[in-house]
Amino acid sequence: MEEGRKINVGILGATGTVGQRFITLLSAHPWFVIHALGASPRSAGKPYASAVNWKQATPIPSAVKTVVVRECKPEHFADCAIIFSGLDADAAGDIEAAFRAAELAVFSNAKNYRRDPNVPLIVPLVNPGHLSIIPQQQALHSPPLSKGFIVTNANCSTTGIVIPLAALEKAFGPLELLLVTTMQAISGAGYPGVASLDIMDNIVPHIGGEEEKIEWETLKILGGVQEDDQGAKSFDMHANHPLRVSAACNRVPVIDGHTECVSVRFARRPPPSPQQVREALAAFTPDAKALGCPSAPRHTITVHEEPDRPQPRLDRYYQDGAGVSVGRVRQCPVLDIKFVVLSNNVSIGAATSSIINAELAVLKGVVAA
Amino acid sequence: MEEGRKINVGILGATGTVGQRFITLLSAHPWFVIHALGASPRSAGKPYASAVNWKQATPIPSAVKTVVVRECKPEHFADCAIIFSGLDADAAGDIEAAFRAAELAVFSNAKNYRRDPNVPLIVPLVNPGHLSIIPQQQALHSPPLSKGFIVTNANCSTTGIVIPLAALEKAFGPLELLLVTTMQAISGAGYPGVASLDIMDNIVPHIGGEEEKIEWETLKILGGVQEDDQGAKSFDMHANHPLRVSAACNRVPVIDGHTECVSVRFARRPPPSPQQVREALAAFTPDAKALGCPSAPRHTITVHEEPDRPQPRLDRYYQDGAGVSVGRVRQCPVLDIKFVVLSNNVSIGAATSSIINAELAVLKGVVAA
Amino acid sequence: MEEGRKINVGILGATGTVGQRFITLLSAHPWFVIHALGASPRSAGKPYASAVNWKQATPIPSAVKTVVVRECKPEHFADCAIIFSGLDADAAGDIEAAFRAAELAVFSNAKNYRRDPNVPLIVPLVNPGHLSIIPQQQALHSPPLSKGFIVTNANCSTTGIVIPLAALEKAFGPLELLLVTTMQAISGAGYPGVASLDIMDNIVPHIGGEEEKIEWETLKILGGVQEDDQGAKSFDMHANHPLRVSAACNRVPVIDGHTECVSVRFARRPPPSPQQVREALAAFTPDAKALGCPSAPRHTITVHEEPDRPQPRLDRYYQDGAGVSVGRVRQCPVLDIKFVVLSNNVSIGAATSSIINAELAVLKGVVAA
Amino acid sequence: MEEGRKINVGILGATGTVGQRFITLLSAHPWFVIHALGASPRSAGKPYASAVNWKQATPIPSAVKTVVVRECKPEHFADCAIIFSGLDADAAGDIEAAFRAAELAVFSNAKNYRRDPNVPLIVPLVNPGHLSIIPQQQALHSPPLSKGFIVTNANCSTTGIVIPLAALEKAFGPLELLLVTTMQAISGAGYPGVASLDIMDNIVPHIGGEEEKIEWETLKILGGVQEDDQGAKSFDMHANHPLRVSAACNRVPVIDGHTECVSVRFARRPPPSPQQVREALAAFTPDAKALGCPSAPRHTITVHEEPDRPQPRLDRYYQDGAGVSVGRVRQCPVLDIKFVVLSNNVSIGAATSSIINAELAVLKGVVAA
Repeated sequence: MEEGRKINVGILGATGTVGQRFITLLSAHPWFVIHALGASPRSAGKPYASAVNWKQATPIPSAVKTVVVRECKPEHFADCAIIFSGLDADAAGDIEAAFRAAELAVFSNAKNYRRDPNVPLIVPLVNPGHLSIIPQQQALHSPPLSKGFIVTNANCSTTGIVIPLAALEKAFGPLELLLVTTMQAISGAGYPGVASLDIMDNIVPHIGGEEEKIEWETLKILGGVQEDDQGAKSFDMHANHPLRVSAACNRVPVIDGHTECVSVRFARRPPPSPQQVREALAAFTPDAKALGCPSAPRHTITVHEEPDRPQPRLDRYYQDGAGVSVGRVRQCPVLDIKFVVLSNNVSIGAATSSIINAELAVLKGVVAA
Repeated sequence: MEEGRKINVGILGATGTVGQRFITLLSAHPWFVIHALGASPRSAGKPYASAVNWKQATPIPSAVKTVVVRECKPEHFADCAIIFSGLDADAAGDIEAAFRAAELAVFSNAKNYRRDPNVPLIVPLVNPGHLSIIPQQQALHSPPLSKGFIVTNANCSTTGIVIPLAALEKAFGPLELLLVTTMQAISGAGYPGVASLDIMDNIVPHIGGEEEKIEWETLKILGGVQEDDQGAKSFDMHANHPLRVSAACNRVPVIDGHTECVSVRFARRPPPSPQQVREALAAFTPDAKALGCPSAPRHTITVHEEPDRPQPRLDRYYQDGAGVSVGRVRQCPVLDIKFVVLSNNVSIGAATSSIINAELAVLKGVVAA
Repeated sequence: MEEGRKINVGILGATGTVGQRFITLLSAHPWFVIHALGASPRSAGKPYASAVNWKQATPIPSAVKTVVVRECKPEHFADCAIIFSGLDADAAGDIEAAFRAAELAVFSNAKNYRRDPNVPLIVPLVNPGHLSIIPQQQALHSPPLSKGFIVTNANCSTTGIVIPLAALEKAFGPLELLLVTTMQAISGAGYPGVASLDIMDNIVPHIGGEEEKIEWETLKILGGVQEDDQGAKSFDMHANHPLRVSAACNRVPVIDGHTECVSVRFARRPPPSPQQVREALAAFTPDAKALGCPSAPRHTITVHEEPDRPQPRLDRYYQDGAGVSVGRVRQCPVLDIKFVVLSNNVSIGAATSSIINAELAVLKGVVAA
Repeated sequence: MEEGRKINVGILGATGTVGQRFITLLSAHPWFVIHALGASPRSAGKPYASAVNWKQATPIPSAVKTVVVRECKPEHFADCAIIFSGLDADAAGDIEAAFRAAELAVFSNAKNYRRDPNVPLIVPLVNPGHLSIIPQQQALHSPPLSKGFIVTNANCSTTGIVIPLAALEKAFGPLELLLVTTMQAISGAGYPGVASLDIMDNIVPHIGGEEEKIEWETLKILGGVQEDDQGAKSFDMHANHPLRVSAACNRVPVIDGHTECVSVRFARRPPPSPQQVREALAAFTPDAKALGCPSAPRHTITVHEEPDRPQPRLDRYYQDGAGVSVGRVRQCPVLDIKFVVLSNNVSIGAATSSIINAELAVLKGVVAA
């Protein structure tokens, strides 16, 4: 990054939960400057402060209070080098496609294009290499694109677990089996999201589509990019070492922070010991950090020794929620190793991932800064 | 039971959480009448209403308000045919032993004697046959006993799962693997128990000793009683078909009701389908019901078809918490079948189990009514 | 009530929160039998069990599971002697008017007609005498009615306080000043109602329109019915002894039960002592009980002596929520006396009030049974 | 403050809730440096990180992790110019007296000396002038002291309201009547403090001694210091314009932040309008800020215009909890004006007040820096 030059970014879905988080995080970003905010036609034309129902614990950054919200049309965002999308899935499909077609670089939190064979699904602390699919995504577009593309980040509950799993595969080779039970915060459902009558003094043992997302996304993210004889690239879905994933998802009365109980079996026999696992997790340094992404956490995985950690209320805001916490690493009598992961679903599980993805794209020259 | 004759019962630890639950349940019992209440020396001598810090949602039954609390010494309970113990583990060891030695029949919620090779660990809807160890328990006592014995019931989180697991083994043969993640209510920790600062807006992914209890108790309860050539009986710990159990236990901000996510693998290949599992669970009728225990639930296992049930707040008080609820029965990509169990930890998970155990003992003639 | 004859009742808004409560309460009513259920056109034609998103802690009464839901049109309810309305305010206005015009007796929870000068606003444990306005309501209708009318009950937070206030005025004469701060449960906002992100670990110090309702409804309910020289009746709004009311309303993270901190000043000097107030509250016997309403609570006002009661979680379900609890009666250094009231907002604060109102109307011959 | 010189401070009760907050705040203080930590004999001799059960959402500052905890004896703190006490009331009385007698300057959160006629009770944004009693406190000590003294800060629920009340008295003259209903966070009770079974889904309408504290402390803080003919100083308890205060205190399921509903009557007729009150609150600038206390908030009173603010979850961490938020300023039909105050009970309501008090004492030369 050239000293002193800032990159204009736009935020779609700026009044929503993820949008508010983008604004909070980007208002102090060293490279990016919020240039344009997009929301529904109902909000368009209003100053941001009167369009939004602000729900963050810090006030609206003063720089965006008077920014006039725009409709989510590409022509209103032409002067943005990067677009962050916090749109809901029902709107994201068409709008993100239109922005890409208008040669804009879109970093999306929505689920719509995660399964697209030419769209990378990137957890920035895990698989930035998947950005290599972008030229193919642009070439196959009709008409072909030179600058526009879509990068998605993962579902929040997937993100939390793939970071330590990537660390384990890096250290000990492929995993064979993964069983995860999630306890997910209400903020993962957006606003108004979960009704208080449904979750106070309660557990809801079901989140629509969530288990399928974890079971599928984990394979795409932990897998590699393969190339056939004609040079066509595709995601291998961890095919070299098939990985079976079983997820059970629960909504719990916690505001922020997804807690996940994980059991894994390694291909390698004998498997690593709990102590080896702890050390590998603590030592994990992702490329995003090595490359110098300013939003990458200083400690990617914090390994807790206390028997009762991590806990969402105590650990979710460490490093602004950009890393993950792992604790209770121990043997699993059924698979090999079990542990607990805590990740901040609105930070590394959502907006922070998009932002680091964009930082990676800048550093790798995928986005023209 | 002879018409019209009631059996005198005593309650130890009567001012504690489990003791209060015993009083609530027993105050309307068709066979048992509360005759004596025991608590710490600090409470002894006071009328129950002034000794207790009552925390139930129904008022103190008027019949016990003025009952004078006694010290937990056998001589004060000599006229009780049955003793229910809601004592804490630190007091239960000595006191329960003293009561047994005084020829009293003790039904205990405490963990102290659960691992004793001559004490049955009985979940009444699962393994009432284990009462057959009692003559040996009495014979090996020094001096031998004719009426005194101890029966324990299981840890609350174990109880919730062994009921559906027993139904599955009855229908489909032995299980091989069991992986369970619990989300346990605060009432399981007694009073004052969990500090509000520790659990509001939080998950604590650790309950001391709980995982070990589930992993061990499950084997004792689901296993049988074997007899050697000399006629000595012992618990076989499911040895004929070794069962590996892995538990991950969490405390969650729910008042009553333990929710548990379970995955199992059957020995039998191919395993039963989810639909077969659902039917077997719904059809399960334990001996306790067949024998006519008045506190046994009408429906032992309620199988939910809705995708988001069971939920503790909606399902925990059904049938006064005497049965369990199972939902989300589906295939597990790692083991065979996964599902969610909800049990009321203060009812079937504690006091109700003791009471049905006592009813079974009466019906089987183990207790002289 | 003639032995053995039951009265057909219909429920409007049967799938909503209040409607579900009506069904739960009426399914075991000694006089009334649920004959027809009305809901939105979206639900009409479906069996109740598939139309409703049932949120009660007890299962749907089996008798109503298969009842086919009807549209809220009077012709579908012609064979009902009594209509209970749990409709939302946006629908209640027109529908309740149409039912009245069709000569049906409507008992409504909605706010729409509470300020109508010919509609009684009745808290059944306080002012059943206001039923005397009904002949005038019928006579002024165009065309005049012989059987149709509307009776409303009060806002839930008003109901909680007017019961003890009526007891105080009965014993000690008129009040002059009333200052109340409410802490209201989320169930008061219906379903989905309050978003969990808005209320977990939070207080919302504002409930739209609620303070105005308390300040106005209290005067109508505690006031009398006056008659002018021409025999025209009107509500006097406590005019003989003007009463100033100030309310501050808060939403709190409690599921059921409104807690209200009340300070009052009496006209009478010297004012009664706290002990006199306690005795007057405990002794209060409303006409509804004297007349024999089956749903009137056995103890109208439970006066707590413990320093830390009433509490919603411990006291809200006593007597099925049909009475109120008062505690901490003490001197107020600013006004005269202060105390805490707890009332179950979904029982006496809503459906139970409507039902007792209907029972009163039957007993007084206002409804033809 | 001389550039670059830091003042050594000690913290008593360093492992408790208030002590942890002191450490968090002081670890980044521009003037003060944590020099010594004191706790119970059980903790003494251990490194802080192993003595404490850390409950803050930010990690233990690394500078204090290895500090060895000392017993709370003055000789271990001789090199501290300032002592902050977060001791519990049962220990604070003797220990703080001993520290004062040893010529140490003690700034205490405990209640023990608040009613002492020679100890100032200071809310730093309100009555720093009360420091003028210190020479008398030292002179009357036996033997007389030259440097040692005790300064207390107020109860957390008192602190929240006296700040806006002081602003009102400054602008509009004396208040006559004050009625306040509090909704207090669980962190106000320390750790373990409130049992989760007592407060989840509940309100406890009683906090022992709290109402008396508010009713008494408010008079001492808002009153002045008077001097008799012999030059003896005393606190006038607002005697020139008697002020009657009535408090009703409630514990609510909120982690941090006390919400208080306040109604006041002014001596002045006519009273100020709501808009005048809003302006006076927003304009209030306390001496602590004018004098340059580094921990004084930039905005002392944030006045909210939105109808549903302040809310604890959204507003408690603004400015690190050093200011207060006021909203819903409106007319009171019973007194004159009513409004809602939100204050962070662990910041301005506890540790932050002590710290600003110490800053004031340094700036005024009461403490030798």
